[in-house]
Amino acid sequence: MSAFQKLGRPTRLNEGAEKVTGKLRFTPDVFLPNTLHARFVASPYAHARILSIDAAAALAVPGVHAVLTARDLPDIAPSSRAHLLLARDRVIFAGQPVALVLAESEASAEDGAEQVLIDFDPLPTAMTIEAALAPDAPLVWPKGIPGSQGSSSDNRRDVRETTQGDVSQGFAAADVTLERTFTSEGVHQSYIEPQAVLVQPDPLGGVTIWTNTQAPFEVQEVVAEMLGLPESRVRVIPMPVGGGFGGKFTLYQPLVVAAALAVNRPVRLVLSRMEELAAGNPAPAIQARVRLGAKQDGTLTALEADILVDAGCYPSNWLADFTGSQLRYCYHIPHYRLTTAEILTFKASVAAYRAPCAPTAALIIESLMDELAERLNRDPLELREQNLAQAKEGQPQHTHGARQVLQQVRQHPLWQNRAATKANGRGVGLAFFGWTGAYGPSSALCMLQHDGRIQLQMASVDLNGTSTGFQLMVAEALNIPLEAVSIVVGDTLTSPYAVNTAGSMVTYSTGGAVLEAAKEVRQQILAVASDELEVAAEDLEIVDGRIQVKGYPSRTLSFKDISARTRKAGAQHPPILAHGRSSPATEAPVYSAQLAEVEVDRDTGEVKIHRIVLVQDVGFALNPLAIQGQMHGGVTQGIGWALYEQLNFDEGGQLLTGSWMDYAVPRADQTAPVIETVLVEVASDHGPLGARGVGESPVIATAAATANAMYDATGIRFTRLPMTAPRVWSALKGSQA
Amino acid sequence: MSAFQKLGRPTRLNEGAEKVTGKLRFTPDVFLPNTLHARFVASPYAHARILSIDAAAALAVPGVHAVLTARDLPDIAPSSRAHLLLARDRVIFAGQPVALVLAESEASAEDGAEQVLIDFDPLPTAMTIEAALAPDAPLVWPKGIPGSQGSSSDNRRDVRETTQGDVSQGFAAADVTLERTFTSEGVHQSYIEPQAVLVQPDPLGGVTIWTNTQAPFEVQEVVAEMLGLPESRVRVIPMPVGGGFGGKFTLYQPLVVAAALAVNRPVRLVLSRMEELAAGNPAPAIQARVRLGAKQDGTLTALEADILVDAGCYPSNWLADFTGSQLRYCYHIPHYRLTTAEILTFKASVAAYRAPCAPTAALIIESLMDELAERLNRDPLELREQNLAQAKEGQPQHTHGARQVLQQVRQHPLWQNRAATKANGRGVGLAFFGWTGAYGPSSALCMLQHDGRIQLQMASVDLNGTSTGFQLMVAEALNIPLEAVSIVVGDTLTSPYAVNTAGSMVTYSTGGAVLEAAKEVRQQILAVASDELEVAAEDLEIVDGRIQVKGYPSRTLSFKDISARTRKAGAQHPPILAHGRSSPATEAPVYSAQLAEVEVDRDTGEVKIHRIVLVQDVGFALNPLAIQGQMHGGVTQGIGWALYEQLNFDEGGQLLTGSWMDYAVPRADQTAPVIETVLVEVASDHGPLGARGVGESPVIATAAATANAMYDATGIRFTRLPMTAPRVWSALKGSQA
Repeated sequence: MSAFQKLGRPTRLNEGAEKVTGKLRFTPDVFLPNTLHARFVASPYAHARILSIDAAAALAVPGVHAVLTARDLPDIAPSSRAHLLLARDRVIFAGQPVALVLAESEASAEDGAEQVLIDFDPLPTAMTIEAALAPDAPLVWPKGIPGSQGSSSDNRRDVRETTQGDVSQGFAAADVTLERTFTSEGVHQSYIEPQAVLVQPDPLGGVTIWTNTQAPFEVQEVVAEMLGLPESRVRVIPMPVGGGFGGKFTLYQPLVVAAALAVNRPVRLVLSRMEELAAGNPAPAIQARVRLGAKQDGTLTALEADILVDAGCYPSNWLADFTGSQLRYCYHIPHYRLTTAEILTFKASVAAYRAPCAPTAALIIESLMDELAERLNRDPLELREQNLAQAKEGQPQHTHGARQVLQQVRQHPLWQNRAATKANGRGVGLAFFGWTGAYGPSSALCMLQHDGRIQLQMASVDLNGTSTGFQLMVAEALNIPLEAVSIVVGDTLTSPYAVNTAGSMVTYSTGGAVLEAAKEVRQQILAVASDELEVAAEDLEIVDGRIQVKGYPSRTLSFKDISARTRKAGAQHPPILAHGRSSPATEAPVYSAQLAEVEVDRDTGEVKIHRIVLVQDVGFALNPLAIQGQMHGGVTQGIGWALYEQLNFDEGGQLLTGSWMDYAVPRADQTAPVIETVLVEVASDHGPLGARGVGESPVIATAAATANAMYDATGIRFTRLPMTAPRVWSALKGSQA
Repeated sequence: MSAFQKLGRPTRLNEGAEKVTGKLRFTPDVFLPNTLHARFVASPYAHARILSIDAAAALAVPGVHAVLTARDLPDIAPSSRAHLLLARDRVIFAGQPVALVLAESEASAEDGAEQVLIDFDPLPTAMTIEAALAPDAPLVWPKGIPGSQGSSSDNRRDVRETTQGDVSQGFAAADVTLERTFTSEGVHQSYIEPQAVLVQPDPLGGVTIWTNTQAPFEVQEVVAEMLGLPESRVRVIPMPVGGGFGGKFTLYQPLVVAAALAVNRPVRLVLSRMEELAAGNPAPAIQARVRLGAKQDGTLTALEADILVDAGCYPSNWLADFTGSQLRYCYHIPHYRLTTAEILTFKASVAAYRAPCAPTAALIIESLMDELAERLNRDPLELREQNLAQAKEGQPQHTHGARQVLQQVRQHPLWQNRAATKANGRGVGLAFFGWTGAYGPSSALCMLQHDGRIQLQMASVDLNGTSTGFQLMVAEALNIPLEAVSIVVGDTLTSPYAVNTAGSMVTYSTGGAVLEAAKEVRQQILAVASDELEVAAEDLEIVDGRIQVKGYPSRTLSFKDISARTRKAGAQHPPILAHGRSSPATEAPVYSAQLAEVEVDRDTGEVKIHRIVLVQDVGFALNPLAIQGQMHGGVTQGIGWALYEQLNFDEGGQLLTGSWMDYAVPRADQTAPVIETVLVEVASDHGPLGARGVGESPVIATAAATANAMYDATGIRFTRLPMTAPRVWSALKGSQA
């Protein structure tokens, strides 16, 4: 039971009702007069020279106002995906925008886009890591990426080697060495709401941008830099996000801004599902060759990994290295060498997807740990416990719940009775993972309104209930009903800076600012009441939203009374207003484990997940209901990683999974019928009230636990995600999995 | 010369360029799709019963969407002018909205409004104070005003008597007693931009209101209370105000909100000039019978005044009392009795107009002081000096520049050489006045943006350059260029509370909050720089927008560098954000004097004002150029009060001055060709850096100085404003002035 009145108790999300009743307005629900609807004409080729563009027929379509090509837009060096705008003379992925049709209606724009005639000269492609690394592979950037360092003689980018100790010595000391290759396919975040942008040019030179971004301040910065506008003239109004998961930072906002400025009218672009799948910001395909060594007593001695990330047409410059670092985060491995690289291919560039690359990293390390336990005849849980990473001297403290999570797993009936489950033809698998989470500086404002309500204002977009958590924090700090707290998610013009909604950062990083602001507001209110009631502030308390003298409940003031004394001409007290600023010193690791109970159909290769148990250290659970929602959602997406989702291309670069008929997001009957959540609460050192970021972890270990459970059921190690029925069937038939 | 780098130097207003180039967007420039244009059908009668309303013909006009009457709107008790919405069964002033036509275009609404047939039964009226006080006068509110106390047996409201000492004894001690009657007519604020409202209903129940109000928080409060909405669901976005002068608080916003909610579409109302003049919020007509007694040595002994204010259809409940209080503010008068009342008439209700009622109060007291000086054969300037009010014990301190102002007048050539001027057929007149000014609590936010600019955010609407003054304050505090400071005037949703723009309050009351916020931002920036440069904060200085180590100008960080260390994931310092809160303990009186040099055409009665010298104590002049702008504007409006402006009605209640062809705002050739401004700077006790509110005072003494100058020229005392040519001609011919 929670030590608090409101925090720690399951609380429904404040925007839930609006969402399920369809009342919440998303970006496409914003209408501006005189708006032009944009549709882009996308390249059908993954690699081609543009010979000519003929817009005459398109311009003749009724309602079409303009057909923009690269010549109509500023000549910006294409140094990143957002900088591409429209293709100038060459396309480097199928789905790349070549022309932009602007029309008075969506339908006219669509019709116009079909009439734009583009003459392409197709060029050779390389769609996979293998093809892109072939000696005669066509280069995505033969002259290098504008503004970037690095070779232009091959498709490798961001090549790094990270070492510790002496890896040869480590393997020499090992009694057992495993060497395996793992792969995972590209996956789309598959949010329900496609990316959407509406831009209004400002008569004074500047723009207002309504968009469903997770990162309003990043959009502001990128647009301002690209188009040479002062940042103060780029106002980004973050709209509700119908699913983001790392895919909604900055993408087509600069293109739509450039178009709106070119025609000096509002322009609106809402992607279609096919455009999303073909040319969004998907998660990368990954290939990893990994060696892990251990002594007979189970102690890990060495790790070597060679990791290649399929970056698409631009390197991310972090995802490969980050994947490598995840392999060594959770366990103590004295010697390691990680070589990582991103490989350019003729596809859309990649980005983050909820716990970026961690589902693959978990598959790798947890498959190996499982196999090691079997080889050493050790309890798999104990082996993990034995090798847990230790705190490093001189680093900020990282209290975490790794052991408590494993302890919960140990006691769980599904784990205890796994032999019986196996006897029934099913398999049980365990995967464990330590997730770093991100952190950053944030600020928030808190104020007393005229009607006695408390308003909290900050700029971190609410993707998953963070605002409800903040509402609880404020209500708790002031001992007022939840309904007496309003939350305003501000925009880049009206709100102070807060972290992007990404990396499980919002509650962890912004929460401290919220608490600080709420506490100061409490003090300010008590100071006014102290003056008005002529009682020392320490003799006052707030009970049920009223300020009263301790022991004299009739001597009381309401919040509205305080407001009346601070918000009108002649009032003697200043308005109640406080800010909070926070910047956690370091991350708060989130350890979690998943148990999967699966059944494999030996005739079809189909895998049925009967149960997932997710045990997660959430620090202090501000709102257990919101966290459980995160856990359910994460596991469901994890099942997509495990069994279904993959972006498939043919050799010419055509996406074969361009709709939700082809791209297999798990259907209701394909998710686990039982998802059990176990919350472990080990307070973090730097989070507000000990909270940790909880959003990403739930997705990580599902695929790995499922793979280990499938091994338990079949005796076959599956090392390629997703483990689709055909692949499983092939493996069961003795072909390659 | 100013002790500051930027403050105290003449600086152009930051919105000036946008205003003069037509780029600034006012309320009517905001377009929402699906908007209905509203025109109201106004009563042609000042008092009538509504027998029937026939909207059939109006509804047949193409484009007309609806014709709303009182029956279509919530049945709200008409307890104030804003609560009237549409007339229910009786009209009480000509111009009162009876029906509201909503149409797809302004023209359709106009056409529709002409087709609404309303059957009225005219009732007797009372258009003047005399008529309304007649024994058989028709009553504006025969059953009393809903929700108000007070008699319903006559048209008197807010009757008060304020006394000090023993007024009979005071007059008994007097050697000279003057008794005079003064009157002034109703005057409209005559801002260029009429009142405008655009309301968008929110799908979640609530509204967004764009309106050119001086008081966004008041509009929010009134609308929420009237329509039963939570205040958090009433967002008021204050738009630029094309002149307000006290007339733009809350008027038709509730009506437009009610209409928008009734049809669930955006509704827009922009008043016509005639609607403004007929049914705005004008300044009241005033009648005052005043006695003033003094000893032979000039010492004032007693004041008695009977003041009647023509309130129109609702009492203001403050203007009459406030007029009385002004008569005793400036001079020490040991005994006084002030009886004040507001008189209801069948006209639009009245409101504030720049220094409410002070032009009339100044005419009264300064005509009497002038006459007294002549009767006692005293220097009029010395007589004023001798009687200046003294600070009261136990009251907050009121340092002021009354003596310094009079000293400047004494030295001025126009005063020194007034005998010569008179010899040339012109007259010179002096008037002096002490204005209280208002004050209130305010707050402001200050933050560092990504691009290194400092943003100041607050909710006091900028009518007259206050934002430029705040920009100067911030630039000064941080030693950065003015251009590096952005000002955001927020709305009721996104900004903390600040005072209405009224009562010369903004700079005086909000300035302290701005300074506090800017100073804290400076400290926060130096703290980050101290950490990064490894130097104590006190060894740092800000020079030309960079933070540098004192004596080592090469060890330096830019504001953008600080931003990079406080505004991205993993950054170790919290964002730079500060709030300021202020609440001055009391008002800061503004003493001013005007000298007028006039010429009276004895054949036509026309008065030519050749010169006005305005000497004003402005406290510390933050931006002398902005203050001079205020002084020029005030004097020009003062000339309107003196000679031209009056709302005239016929006996039936028809406005005779319903356009700017009839209502005489001074033309360019009717203002003074020379307006000389003399700034006296006596620091205030509670204002930011000693500033005082300067906006209202300039209008006050013009009419009084002109009247005294006209006496100087003609030997006739003019006691009725405006002193129009026909009135002056009549006086010169020996008829009643």
